[in-house]
Amino acid sequence: MKVIDLNCDMGESFGAYTIGNDEGILDYITSANIACGFHAGDPATMKKTVRKAMEKNVGLGAHPGLQDLVGYGRREMDISPEEVYDIVVYQIGALYGFVKSEGGKLQHVKPHGALYNMAARSASLSEAIAEAVYKIDPELILFGLYGGELVTAGKKIGLRTAKEVFSDRTYQDTGKLTPRKEVSAIISDKDKAARQVIRMVRESKVMSLQGADVPIEAETICIHGDHDNSLDFASYLSKALREAGIEVSAISKFLK
Amino acid sequence: MKVIDLNCDMGESFGAYTIGNDEGILDYITSANIACGFHAGDPATMKKTVRKAMEKNVGLGAHPGLQDLVGYGRREMDISPEEVYDIVVYQIGALYGFVKSEGGKLQHVKPHGALYNMAARSASLSEAIAEAVYKIDPELILFGLYGGELVTAGKKIGLRTAKEVFSDRTYQDTGKLTPRKEVSAIISDKDKAARQVIRMVRESKVMSLQGADVPIEAETICIHGDHDNSLDFASYLSKALREAGIEVSAISKFLK
Amino acid sequence: MKVIDLNCDMGESFGAYTIGNDEGILDYITSANIACGFHAGDPATMKKTVRKAMEKNVGLGAHPGLQDLVGYGRREMDISPEEVYDIVVYQIGALYGFVKSEGGKLQHVKPHGALYNMAARSASLSEAIAEAVYKIDPELILFGLYGGELVTAGKKIGLRTAKEVFSDRTYQDTGKLTPRKEVSAIISDKDKAARQVIRMVRESKVMSLQGADVPIEAETICIHGDHDNSLDFASYLSKALREAGIEVSAISKFLK
Amino acid sequence: MKVIDLNCDMGESFGAYTIGNDEGILDYITSANIACGFHAGDPATMKKTVRKAMEKNVGLGAHPGLQDLVGYGRREMDISPEEVYDIVVYQIGALYGFVKSEGGKLQHVKPHGALYNMAARSASLSEAIAEAVYKIDPELILFGLYGGELVTAGKKIGLRTAKEVFSDRTYQDTGKLTPRKEVSAIISDKDKAARQVIRMVRESKVMSLQGADVPIEAETICIHGDHDNSLDFASYLSKALREAGIEVSAISKFLK
Repeated sequence: MKVIDLNCDMGESFGAYTIGNDEGILDYITSANIACGFHAGDPATMKKTVRKAMEKNVGLGAHPGLQDLVGYGRREMDISPEEVYDIVVYQIGALYGFVKSEGGKLQHVKPHGALYNMAARSASLSEAIAEAVYKIDPELILFGLYGGELVTAGKKIGLRTAKEVFSDRTYQDTGKLTPRKEVSAIISDKDKAARQVIRMVRESKVMSLQGADVPIEAETICIHGDHDNSLDFASYLSKALREAGIEVSAISKFLK
Repeated sequence: MKVIDLNCDMGESFGAYTIGNDEGILDYITSANIACGFHAGDPATMKKTVRKAMEKNVGLGAHPGLQDLVGYGRREMDISPEEVYDIVVYQIGALYGFVKSEGGKLQHVKPHGALYNMAARSASLSEAIAEAVYKIDPELILFGLYGGELVTAGKKIGLRTAKEVFSDRTYQDTGKLTPRKEVSAIISDKDKAARQVIRMVRESKVMSLQGADVPIEAETICIHGDHDNSLDFASYLSKALREAGIEVSAISKFLK
Repeated sequence: MKVIDLNCDMGESFGAYTIGNDEGILDYITSANIACGFHAGDPATMKKTVRKAMEKNVGLGAHPGLQDLVGYGRREMDISPEEVYDIVVYQIGALYGFVKSEGGKLQHVKPHGALYNMAARSASLSEAIAEAVYKIDPELILFGLYGGELVTAGKKIGLRTAKEVFSDRTYQDTGKLTPRKEVSAIISDKDKAARQVIRMVRESKVMSLQGADVPIEAETICIHGDHDNSLDFASYLSKALREAGIEVSAISKFLK
Repeated sequence: MKVIDLNCDMGESFGAYTIGNDEGILDYITSANIACGFHAGDPATMKKTVRKAMEKNVGLGAHPGLQDLVGYGRREMDISPEEVYDIVVYQIGALYGFVKSEGGKLQHVKPHGALYNMAARSASLSEAIAEAVYKIDPELILFGLYGGELVTAGKKIGLRTAKEVFSDRTYQDTGKLTPRKEVSAIISDKDKAARQVIRMVRESKVMSLQGADVPIEAETICIHGDHDNSLDFASYLSKALREAGIEVSAISKFLK
């Protein structure tokens, strides 16, 4: 039987500001990427998010980002591997404070936004992230884009890694995501999205925008939680996967 | 034989900005209170400071402060016990990231500046801090002002605590520190300071400004590292204590 | 004919985070207090808010706060008059950049949250704020709580001041607002709120919670924009005032 | 008689942190680029710096940077022209608050660090900066690297611009600065630096690293204030220019 992890970014509220519908979405996902206060999140939100995720038995992950709150960590920066190492250690540690004080266990690390994208392309930044994760805890699972440098760097240093695919994004013949600025980048039809991920999991294939079958490996699926219809999308996708005979389970329960 | 710990705030540089002479002072102290990025410090500085302290075999402590970088954590804020709990967990966690990734062991926690002063007076804030420390790791030692609420709260929850005295501050008949704004608050003569702490350690007494002998307990002595003559002061004090037959040792090595 | 100004805090979104319904509420108010980036707001939001307010012919005001983004400027701090002066000059200046580049005119200044409350009680902080406003532009109008120190300080230095009352808060026999933490502090019934402000404007009286008539002076009424029913409340209040024969107009158009 | 402006970055201290020797260097320069709180500086420092510069009759300039305090504004970011426009308006405005409240006059704007470098290469970012400056005050002078896009954009929109050269940097055959990471980028010999700028001003030529004479135009010379020998360097350069018969004067006094 096939099995897959569903992950979503969480805890991205800040002070008086709310983003996302964390409580609702936690019912449908199996791994939570919890913001650590650099691109989003704050200590109170982190504590609350760790508690909610533990109540719902969802895997706990750190979601470190660039130190750019006003840009939500989405603007790439010219940052050195050593600087990346430092900010990743800091943020994983900060989240670890809440995980440990709540009696939980940290499962994974997934970089956010621009840091995730830069890492996917850069071996040196990926190696810095992988080293940070490994040195804090070699049992942690590192999430990275399928086909990107982060998965390679994680394996190289001896971490377990999870190849991530996207339910609501289209793919190119190269196996890469269609850049977000292109009109055809986003799949807004939930049925189409569900069919894409089911095929990714079952057949390890995705139909590219250009119409060709492209090989792909899916170990965890990213769901976006900050859209108006995110909850409906998450619920639909979770149900569709199960109906297709695919088990939805936290990555730590099945990844070798 | 009497024994005492010498502690100093460390890692309070930030980005391009440098404060203190950490490397020099580490030669004379036994416990380092390392800033965690809220009132001072940044990820790169934290890593570097943890490494240096480990090289010199100095006990590693978290030094959490209020989130007030421009005010250096010295301005009191109307902050709830729950907010204090959250920022303390966050900051201990962040430092713990560096301690763990460097293969070290976290020894203690000492709040900074306004947070330290507010805690000394407030049972509810002290209980929030003590709970944060205890829930992250009940083996940690909590530093607090002799006679203040933080030591009480730490003992109550089951933590080991270290009563802190000041080498360069005068005391009142009440056993309290002379408020900093008063002219006579600071002892700038290093010989006088040394004699004060030697008497505190040996006889558990301090001569108040008013001229009376006041009982006091000293388990750790605070040294300030951000003055021009800090290094000279630290060196002198360390030598004077040893010459007086007092052992200077990291708190975790002798505290019961 | 009686005339009154309706003001509301605006531009308190930040980066990816949205608060309030500024565009809707601008249709009903006459003066906008625009956040300046310390407690809320950011450069992009400030520009957008200045533009929208100018399109709708609403008076432009600076809304400086404490430098406490995560606490939304609501936590009091132990800050000196000189520090208050400095942060107020900075923030008025920053907003002035957008007002001048858009070809507008700055009408007023109203401090935010904890800064507003601290100023209401403290003559020295109020004098620091009044001096900052006056030295930037003596034509600016300073908003302050009716009965508070800010109005006194403003008049003393030679500024025009606007006495502010609240539509959705109850008053005490002393003429002071019922503290927010008390259950009876908030008036959630819009009809009751409208009747209270109409009476304040027409008769210069308010019925205290204790049931006595208390003298009050209203030159501008504060409306809150960050509740679910804020838009409905603003629309209702604006209509009720006009139907009661009271003109609703920007403060600069009628204040002597 | 030839005339030249000497400019230096100022007011880059932050809270408890000090950088530079502003007071000393103000004796030798004619234009001060004052940090505005994003990459460095804070409200108290800005006020103090404006006051000191006015006392010493030095031209007042805004020195806006990227919002990256921990990176000192030196790390390039993927930021849109609109975002650049917004942060430049904000920062000029903030400094303008202090200039106006002190009764001074803002003379110029010079972007900082990564923003300066990005603007030198990018027409669209330069146009955003030039528009921000122009819309706040078309009388302001825009400083930009000789040969870079910022000067072009400034002239295009109708601003007066000042072409900047560096006293302590070497030049390439292309007229560009030798990249900082190269060993030969910096001129540390003050006599050599003085001869280079005297020739730039008198003959509009600079000898490239490769040994060729390259045409250059100098309207303002950048001096760095954050090195150990900055004060000595500034004093030497100022004296050398005068002894060479070159007048040293604030840019607004001679630029057409």
